[in-house]
Amino acid sequence: MTTAYAAQIPSGPLSKISYSPGELEAGEIEIDVKYCGLCHSDISMINNDWAISQYPLVPGHEIVGTITKIAPSVTNLKLGQTVGIGWHSGFCNTCTHCIEGDHNLCSQAQGTIVSHHGGFADKFRAQATSVIPIPDGLDLSTVGPLFCGGITVFNPLIQFDIPPTAKVAVIGIGGLGHLALQFLNAWGCEVTAFTSSEDKKQEALKLGAHHTLNSRSSDEIEKAAGSFDLIISTVNVKLDWELYINTLKAKGRLHFVGATLEPIEIQAFSLIMAQRSISGSPVGSPATIAKMLDFVKLHNIQAKVELFPMSEVNEAIAHLESGKARYRIVLEN
Amino acid sequence: MTTAYAAQIPSGPLSKISYSPGELEAGEIEIDVKYCGLCHSDISMINNDWAISQYPLVPGHEIVGTITKIAPSVTNLKLGQTVGIGWHSGFCNTCTHCIEGDHNLCSQAQGTIVSHHGGFADKFRAQATSVIPIPDGLDLSTVGPLFCGGITVFNPLIQFDIPPTAKVAVIGIGGLGHLALQFLNAWGCEVTAFTSSEDKKQEALKLGAHHTLNSRSSDEIEKAAGSFDLIISTVNVKLDWELYINTLKAKGRLHFVGATLEPIEIQAFSLIMAQRSISGSPVGSPATIAKMLDFVKLHNIQAKVELFPMSEVNEAIAHLESGKARYRIVLEN
Repeated sequence: MTTAYAAQIPSGPLSKISYSPGELEAGEIEIDVKYCGLCHSDISMINNDWAISQYPLVPGHEIVGTITKIAPSVTNLKLGQTVGIGWHSGFCNTCTHCIEGDHNLCSQAQGTIVSHHGGFADKFRAQATSVIPIPDGLDLSTVGPLFCGGITVFNPLIQFDIPPTAKVAVIGIGGLGHLALQFLNAWGCEVTAFTSSEDKKQEALKLGAHHTLNSRSSDEIEKAAGSFDLIISTVNVKLDWELYINTLKAKGRLHFVGATLEPIEIQAFSLIMAQRSISGSPVGSPATIAKMLDFVKLHNIQAKVELFPMSEVNEAIAHLESGKARYRIVLEN
Repeated sequence: MTTAYAAQIPSGPLSKISYSPGELEAGEIEIDVKYCGLCHSDISMINNDWAISQYPLVPGHEIVGTITKIAPSVTNLKLGQTVGIGWHSGFCNTCTHCIEGDHNLCSQAQGTIVSHHGGFADKFRAQATSVIPIPDGLDLSTVGPLFCGGITVFNPLIQFDIPPTAKVAVIGIGGLGHLALQFLNAWGCEVTAFTSSEDKKQEALKLGAHHTLNSRSSDEIEKAAGSFDLIISTVNVKLDWELYINTLKAKGRLHFVGATLEPIEIQAFSLIMAQRSISGSPVGSPATIAKMLDFVKLHNIQAKVELFPMSEVNEAIAHLESGKARYRIVLEN
């Protein structure tokens, strides 16, 4: 039996449940969960914000643990190995996207917390193709957040071949943004953080930003017109996007990884006159996650985490919702 | 003296004017205008739709003619050469964009009809760096439209490295769209035309489309979900963009070259879930125009034009505004 923490109703508190995961299927592994990050998407799923939640709902999709069971057909992993799993816990492995290496775009991908019980649990099952070995030498308590928050901001650098000569800005210095600043600094880019608070400004500079801009000052943003090759927006609120687009250079890109629910409004002229793009992307493929972990190790990149015991998951959620988490909460078994 | 056709007031009819272009400046050439295409942007400028027009306003920015004067400093062109000029009649030649070969993104570029008298005239002056020699063997009466309408839809194929294996759709089969279909077919792509009229459907198939979709049928568009790598929108009206975005494959791009004035509204999720982009671009650089002309010659691509004498420019404008032009009007001296 697996013991897990589940919401029974939309926006409900999490409580302990037990469920039987059944026989280990072909291609599957089971891990003992050691750590699991807490992501805003967990709260969106608990609250049924995206109208796709099923209850009881077990959140948790930044999972780190040790393999304890392995189906005979699995050849790429072994018992006792320390691994991580993110937003996806399996793929069809046969569609165009999977065979092109873009498993994160597979429309038949198995969710970790969508139609599936997640990682706020003692054990977790996944298809081996979604399970990434963690390189030795990383502090495991900080690795979980890389599997969703981290890969979400690392993946655009790979997808769009961002060169180290690019000037890149990050909107929102939270769970995703604080990792983006570290990645971009190590990537060689000139990095700007858009942030609204004075204390986060100082922290942003420590995390790798070379400059900061006050996201509450239209004046300051207007003065930055034509500055950036890439802006990564990690926020899930509506901003004056036209203002931000004008801070892009010609050929610049405003890239959304934060799922704002209100439509984005853009003037065609702002795109046309300077050949600008806006775009979005979801997490990243297993191959890109593996690349990210090597990059993290080489450059001593680390999520700043606050640890809570798994049993205090409701307190952890309240802390995240208070906006005070610096920068990612990790639950520990 | 130069004789030209000018609007004296916003939305006014064009009438003959004479002006002295002064001494030929360093780097300039003068041509005898033989042909000049009529583009929707000429009408937008006549009407001051973009609030940047100055009067008297001489339209015309798809200019073909023969060099009759040449400043001593000009070494890349010669007297008697047949050349064309498009939206730009000069560049700063020193900014980042110019020195990277993206002259069309130069913010100091000299317009052909913006703050400058255009090609509805007997003579035209331009800086030599904006003047492109026309390869021998093209029917000159059809070449003008390539310099704005043509390059505007050809340029995205170069900018985004569109491969011949791409599936590409075109929205709007008019002056730009009818050239886009020919380019894309010769490029090797599988080509779909979105069009609203039955007669244009048959013409679209002749021009190079492999398929057509009825742009007035939401049903038909919904059924095309996930079909295209690239959509080029040439229209300047607001459509249900969300509907079109969903016809893109993962990693697909909806690219605007038609300057719709109403904001584009997009759901972040539609971009994020399938790593889609929306973007825009303006005309193309001199180097890209030269590439296009070679491609046009190799593949026998040709604008379908209706010729009017330059003196009947007002009738030509009325014909364009009636929506009956098939597909581009060219004025002839």
